Amino acid sequence: MQIARTIADMKRLRRKCRGTVGFVPTMGYLHEGHLELVRVAKKANLVVAVSIFVNPTQFAPSEDFKAYPRDLDRDLSLLKSVKTDIVFIPSEAEMYPEGYNSWVVLKGITETLEGRSRPTHFQGVTTVCNKLFNIVEPDKAYFGQKDAQQVLVIQKMVADLDMNLEIVVAPTVRESDGLAMSSRNTYLMPEERQSAVVLYKSLCLAKEMYEKGERDAARIKAAMAELITTVPGAQIDYISTSDIDTLQEVDQIAGKILVSLAVRIGKPRLIDNIILG
Amino acid sequence: MQIARTIADMKRLRRKCRGTVGFVPTMGYLHEGHLELVRVAKKANLVVAVSIFVNPTQFAPSEDFKAYPRDLDRDLSLLKSVKTDIVFIPSEAEMYPEGYNSWVVLKGITETLEGRSRPTHFQGVTTVCNKLFNIVEPDKAYFGQKDAQQVLVIQKMVADLDMNLEIVVAPTVRESDGLAMSSRNTYLMPEERQSAVVLYKSLCLAKEMYEKGERDAARIKAAMAELITTVPGAQIDYISTSDIDTLQEVDQIAGKILVSLAVRIGKPRLIDNIILG
Repeated sequence: MQIARTIADMKRLRRKCRGTVGFVPTMGYLHEGHLELVRVAKKANLVVAVSIFVNPTQFAPSEDFKAYPRDLDRDLSLLKSVKTDIVFIPSEAEMYPEGYNSWVVLKGITETLEGRSRPTHFQGVTTVCNKLFNIVEPDKAYFGQKDAQQVLVIQKMVADLDMNLEIVVAPTVRESDGLAMSSRNTYLMPEERQSAVVLYKSLCLAKEMYEKGERDAARIKAAMAELITTVPGAQIDYISTSDIDTLQEVDQIAGKILVSLAVRIGKPRLIDNIILG
Repeated sequence: MQIARTIADMKRLRRKCRGTVGFVPTMGYLHEGHLELVRVAKKANLVVAVSIFVNPTQFAPSEDFKAYPRDLDRDLSLLKSVKTDIVFIPSEAEMYPEGYNSWVVLKGITETLEGRSRPTHFQGVTTVCNKLFNIVEPDKAYFGQKDAQQVLVIQKMVADLDMNLEIVVAPTVRESDGLAMSSRNTYLMPEERQSAVVLYKSLCLAKEMYEKGERDAARIKAAMAELITTVPGAQIDYISTSDIDTLQEVDQIAGKILVSLAVRIGKPRLIDNIILG
């Protein structure tokens, strides 16, 4: 496993690669969801590169950039265990040197859901992914369905800016009780951890209602909200049923619909989603 | 000479190229300045690609997008005469399909000079160049010094976003009387064409003062303005002496200083610049 800590080193390693390169960008503190992305990438590419970079520009000043969990030694040994070929670990100064001032900005689909709650978030995500794609030059980059809006935003950036890679989406990996894996789950106190499963339970309820024939979005969202509010310490940020392409809210469930939600469980804010139709 | 009219075709042609690719992005209505860029590119690369695309997103609604001069047949025969290998001529719908909504935005150096007079201009320039660089994947791209701020903005975009190409700047090509070549010169009425040389003359005056020891920026700019206002129909938009890297105005001429100006001669707005130091 080779490690690059500078952009120049990463570009040098890239130029030596033969065959296709799969790329998994991460903020570290890896869990089974990340490792699954590496495994999927391994199957389709000769070389797999993973980046570990807690990207400051996608956190608002009020958010958890400083507190975001980090454990590089553990991350490296996990990446080795799944046979990662290259790990790119740039510093903040390497990615955003003094005077840095270029931003990749998507309008429209970044302004709803997560973007409404976190108005500067996606500009940070698209900018860092644009840079990472230019540095690593992957044939394919792998993202988890858990961050559904992020996936759509990055796919749209790649399409709009004619970038030369394919975005591959892998299913959300869940704990045995259904909680979507997330580095932020480590923030949960033991009793909050138990409460957190309500996000998944509410999505299962939506699916059940849909399968029984319910098509009224408001009734589905109301039932989800009712379930969530039974849990102590759960605070709903949003529950949404939106068109899978435009992320515009729908009144009726028809075609492919993204059911997504953000809920604060104690301090941490968790997100999850499923697709109906 | 091969012609690509779609992004897919251009990418296909690019994949067949062996050796380095030099790229000259243009808005067409080519003049000797563009042809000189092709010649310079030819000397350093095995393949030279030129794009012709009047980019709507770099014109404000009040500007001359509709009136911008176009003559594709003439452009193609000129490009053939300088042995261009590939010409990329995308349509507006090809570059900006319905729902297009991704922008590359540079702050700081885009907010002064041209950016002050044309606040949405550089966002259009950086976005289209970012797309073109991803489509053509050149080793080097060639720009003229006449658009000094554009060169700096694009160099900064390439550096900040870690793009894999080098920006090469070629000197401004001038008419025999000194007027900088520009597609917009065609807008000039015969008597305006005579007046237009005052931009260059005022830059020569600045250089002369500098060479005689003048270091006070205000005095240089005042002398330039005085000269320009003797010309009937000339309206100064700005005269600037700025740091070559940051484009911040300076009081004293020290180090490398960009002397630049924008002047309306009748209807057309012309720009020019020289570097002192």
